[in-house]
Parts: sequence; C-alpha cells; structure tokens
Amino acid sequence: MSPSLIVTYHVQSDAAAIEARAQAIAVEQSVEMPVEAIDDAFVLGEIVGQVDGINDLGQGTFSVRIRLAASSTGFEAGQLLNMLFGNTSIHPDVALVDVQLPPDLAATFGGPRHGIPGLRARIGAAKRPLTCSALKPQGLPPDGLAAIAGRLALGGVDFIKDDHGLADQAYAPFAARVAACAAAVAAANLASGGATRYAPSLSGNLDQLRRQAKVARDHGIDTLLAAPMILGLPAFAALVADFPDMAFIAHPAMAGATAIRPPLLLGRLFRLFGADATVFPHQGGRFGYSATTCRDLAEAARGEWMGLKDCLPVPAGGMTAERVGEMLDFYGDEVMLLVGGSLLAAGPRLTEETAAFVHRVHAHGT
Amino acid sequence: MSPSLIVTYHVQSDAAAIEARAQAIAVEQSVEMPVEAIDDAFVLGEIVGQVDGINDLGQGTFSVRIRLAASSTGFEAGQLLNMLFGNTSIHPDVALVDVQLPPDLAATFGGPRHGIPGLRARIGAAKRPLTCSALKPQGLPPDGLAAIAGRLALGGVDFIKDDHGLADQAYAPFAARVAACAAAVAAANLASGGATRYAPSLSGNLDQLRRQAKVARDHGIDTLLAAPMILGLPAFAALVADFPDMAFIAHPAMAGATAIRPPLLLGRLFRLFGADATVFPHQGGRFGYSATTCRDLAEAARGEWMGLKDCLPVPAGGMTAERVGEMLDFYGDEVMLLVGGSLLAAGPRLTEETAAFVHRVHAHGT
Repeated sequence: MSPSLIVTYHVQSDAAAIEARAQAIAVEQSVEMPVEAIDDAFVLGEIVGQVDGINDLGQGTFSVRIRLAASSTGFEAGQLLNMLFGNTSIHPDVALVDVQLPPDLAATFGGPRHGIPGLRARIGAAKRPLTCSALKPQGLPPDGLAAIAGRLALGGVDFIKDDHGLADQAYAPFAARVAACAAAVAAANLASGGATRYAPSLSGNLDQLRRQAKVARDHGIDTLLAAPMILGLPAFAALVADFPDMAFIAHPAMAGATAIRPPLLLGRLFRLFGADATVFPHQGGRFGYSATTCRDLAEAARGEWMGLKDCLPVPAGGMTAERVGEMLDFYGDEVMLLVGGSLLAAGPRLTEETAAFVHRVHAHGT
Repeated sequence: MSPSLIVTYHVQSDAAAIEARAQAIAVEQSVEMPVEAIDDAFVLGEIVGQVDGINDLGQGTFSVRIRLAASSTGFEAGQLLNMLFGNTSIHPDVALVDVQLPPDLAATFGGPRHGIPGLRARIGAAKRPLTCSALKPQGLPPDGLAAIAGRLALGGVDFIKDDHGLADQAYAPFAARVAACAAAVAAANLASGGATRYAPSLSGNLDQLRRQAKVARDHGIDTLLAAPMILGLPAFAALVADFPDMAFIAHPAMAGATAIRPPLLLGRLFRLFGADATVFPHQGGRFGYSATTCRDLAEAARGEWMGLKDCLPVPAGGMTAERVGEMLDFYGDEVMLLVGGSLLAAGPRLTEETAAFVHRVHAHGT
C-alpha cells in the first residue's frame, strides 16, 4: 500500500465478534461496499481499508488499528475527517482514538504557524507560563465590553480572548466590538507599559471569517479565537492558510466529549490544522475531563509530532486564581492558564483580581 | 424576553441536583459567567438563559427546556449551533433533543429551496416513492465510476448519489469524475427514455465547494450531495443560498449518534439550513438507529414545521431490495429508498438488479 493513515478506534464488542467488527470498520471507512464485488486491482490493493491490528484492552473494549490510503483524503481537511470517522461516528460503540499520518499529509496542513514561541514573542515572555482571561458576557454593547477588556489589560493578563459566544450579533457587531476593544486594550497597554493581546472570536462562513480577520488585522490584532467544530474544519484550515500573520487559539465548542477522544481532536487534529493554542476544560471545573485526559491532551498538543510546531495547552472551564499553583505543577511552564468568570465576578475589583492572578503565575517556581 | 429559542436537553442527573444543573446549562449556553456579577439590565433581562421547565422522564433522565435570546445567534448557522450546544456538548451526560425557533430565524435560513415537490419534478414522479443508489467504490478512475453510473441509470433508478467518500482525490478528481458520470447518465437516459439524476458529492472549503457546484451546473446537474457536519454548517448554509437552482441531499457523515438526537440534527436542523433530502441509517442495517428514531427523524424532516418546505427522508445504510415492502409500509410514499452496496454486489447483473429494485418500489401498493 502507498502512504497510509493508521487510525485507532476503541470498539465495544464481544471477543468472538471483534475481527468481523474490525473488518467492517475498515470497509465502512474506505469503499463502503461488499469487497467481493470489487474487481479493480488498484482499489483492492490500495484503497480498501486493512485491519492492521487488534488489541484486547479488557472489559469488552478492543483497540482496532485500520490502515487507510492517504490519497483517499484528497489532502483536504474535511475529507480527512470523513475518512477518519465519517460513517463510523454513527456507531455509538466506536470511539476515534488516534491517527498516525504520513509526513506529506502533515506537511500539507502544516500545523501551527507560530506555535508556542510565536505566542511568547507577542507578549515578550520567553519562559514563564502565560495568562489569559475571557471577555464576556455577551449582550453588552461594544463600549461595555471594551471597558471590561481595558480593565483586564490593566491587570496585566497576557491574552484576552472573546467569549466564544461573542459573534456578530446586533447588540455588539463584530467590527464595532473589535474596534472598541482593540482601542481599550491599546490604551491600557500604553498606560501600563504592558503588551496584552486581544483575541477576538470569529464566526460565520469563510467569506465572513475572512472579512472579520481583515477587520481584526486593520486594528493591529495578531491573535484570533476560532471554534473549529463550529466553523467546520475545512473553513478553519483555509483561514489559517489565508492569514499566516495571525496566531489562532482554538476553542472546543461543539467538540463534544464522547466520540472523538479529546487528546486526538483538541490536541492533535486542531494542531494539525493550525491551532497555535488549544482551550480545553481542566479537571475539577465545570466539565468532566479526567486528569489523564488533560495530561494526554497537553502532550498531544505540545509534544514532538510530525515536525509540527507545538500548540500551547490552555486549560480552562471554571478555573480560579487559587488553582494556579496546582495547575502549573500539573502542566509545567509551557501552558497558558485561562481564568474567566471568576475574575469577572470580582466586579469593581476586576483589575486588582486580575493582577493578583497574573502575579501568582509569574511568582510560581521563583 | 424578545424572540427566543426554546431548547430541550435530556440530562442525566439526581433529582436533587436537576434544578441547579438546568440553571447551569442556561448560564453556560448564554453568558457563561456568574450571573450575580452582571449588572447590565439588557443582559440580565434578555440574554441570560432562562430555565423554562423541567420534566422528570424517569430512570435518572430529565427533560430540561432553556429559553435563549434569538438575537444571540446573530442569525448565522454556526453561531446558532454554538448557542444550542457549544460548551454543553462537552458534558457527556447531556443530549440536545429539540429546539423551537421564532419565525424570523426560520425564515432567515429558509429551509429546503425545492423540497419534496422539487425532487419529484426532477424525475417526473408525482406520487410514488423515489429510488436512489450510491456510486462507489472510491479508488476507481472517472471512467470506471461512469461505467457503473451508466448501468445504474439504465436500471431506472431515480437518483444516483456519489458515495460520500468520493471527494477530489488524485485518482478521480472532481471535475473529471463529474464530467464522465454526467455524460454516462445522460447517455443512459437518452437510450432508455429515463430521467435519472446524478448527484455528485461536494467537499472542501467554501471556495472549493463553489467551484465544484459550478462545475456540476456546467454539466447540467441540478442535485448535489453534501455532508453538513463535515463541511461545517456555515459552509452548508452558504452553499444552499448561493446555488438556489440546486437541490441538496444531506449526508450524515460525522453526525454521530450520541450527543445531538438524530431527529433534531438530521431532520430539523439539516432541513432548516436547506437540505431537500436527508440520508440516514434505517433500522436493521449496518447502524443502530431504532424504529422510533427513524420514525421521529422522518417526521422531523417532512412534517409541518415553521412553514418550511418538506425535506425528503432517505433511509439507507445497508438496505436491500428485499426490504422495499417493509420500508414503504413504514415510511409511506413520501420517501426515497437508497440501496447501494447490495446492488453493486450483483456485479455483471447490476442493471438488472437495479431494475428489479425499482420495479418493487413502483409496484408497491398498486
């Protein structure tokens, strides 16, 4: 077989049935028809999926490795997802766990354009962990959001990302919001000598995404937030390719928890398609990720993989400044801690509480 | 509150915790921050999600209705999905079950442009159930696929859709494949006096989708296949709006089975964004949908809803000609039966087996 993907699934199955299940997945994810009815030598030799191995993980779960032709992806993001999990996503007892790619496929997508060094360079922090907060609530007008952004920036946080719910709504249209917030953050930086970056959230189809990215660029913005599973992976990959000057923070909205293992989707795949940073729920917050999932996800994002740049893990989802020490012990320094709502809850003391969060991060380990 | 969405979730919960869970979902899906830290009257009165009702469904499952401001969707497909299920998709114990939309939101997306009458008009069948087959396997060159398409068309099937795995691969580039298959189907129609339609599968980002749709149009094609969850809902909605002459058959790839209930996603939402027909796995085939799910999905697609045109149910997923009678008894005449692999398995008798399948459908109930 020519260059291949090796795709790993976890399948709930009886031991007696697993070989047939594995073979069925190999067929479903490739030719999707009875193999005995195929007489074309190229299809039989190169395109029909092959079972590469089956391991019994115990308790009725099997790890199944399937080999698929890299050419079947058309070297396109959506079709890659389709080959990995298109129809098989409809089986509730199959999870997509991992994929090994041939080098040319990884190079086609290219991974993060800036990676961790690029994010560090934006705010002039060479080694320490980075800090992030979230701009909300949606419903405020542009000047209301800008006032909060300015106060977060005065607190010295490195990145202020839009809440992923901020889109292009009538009460705060994208262009007006970005103009106001970029100006507020710039004014705060001027006053404080800081280098806080504002990362607006993009939404809509590719035409709208491009217009929004250009508006952001016109306001001096160099970092954007995008939710790849809301936008669609083809749109996310196109956006990354079209705006090589922009760093992208990926948001997990709609990424779900059940069918594609988070380290693969939020770590590997978002990184593959160009995320420079990836937001995910840390254990013990509002969502149910385990410590193991969080650790695997962080390593999938920033560990050596296919020669792609590292993608910065951004644990979030109900974090507080009190958890800084524990989180930095868990993730080390190559991380960006995101504390949102619990800072906003400080009301009039927003800048002071932000500064206290930032100070905890800077002081850790020194 | 202004015009609202009413979103229904099924939540696994203890009875003692369900009110807090419901309130947490209402906040997560709207402002995503502590409500007590919000002092803006518009945000508090209009934007913060409200719990509209909770019903105990038994066995630890609760139906929770949440009211969200329609304005928060920005009247855009991706942001609508984000408001319905963005962060809450990450909770493995919450399923998205249903949504009620205000009329202006439904009108913004517009639903099917052609609907069941438009599909019927294409092939001149006013009342009977329609027939469909699938063109595969991927890996064949354009002339190999065209030969199969021609033989299916000679068998008199109404629609031949590309397998959703046919993309823009080097071994059968989109433009060459569509040219060859469209010509083969046209030649078969000329020979037989039939009106078979070939529906090629689109892939890629919005630029690529538009180029492919134009290529298809140039070859006289008026029906397309698209997988909204692979392309991204924003891209699918844009494509439907850009090509009002085209009917769209939606494919369920990547639609999964677990987190969004299939009648909502494959029935209601794909219909909302413009699917004229929706493919889904019928019970007893290769996938695990129940009879209830299939019936609910068909009714969500074609039942009266918001004044939108009906979307034609297309049960599939390992069906055979032997099941025609049972399926037509189940769905009635407003349906298109899709039999793919089991016809292709007939090898040299492909045209004859296709004709036998078509005959069974035409003869049913007469």
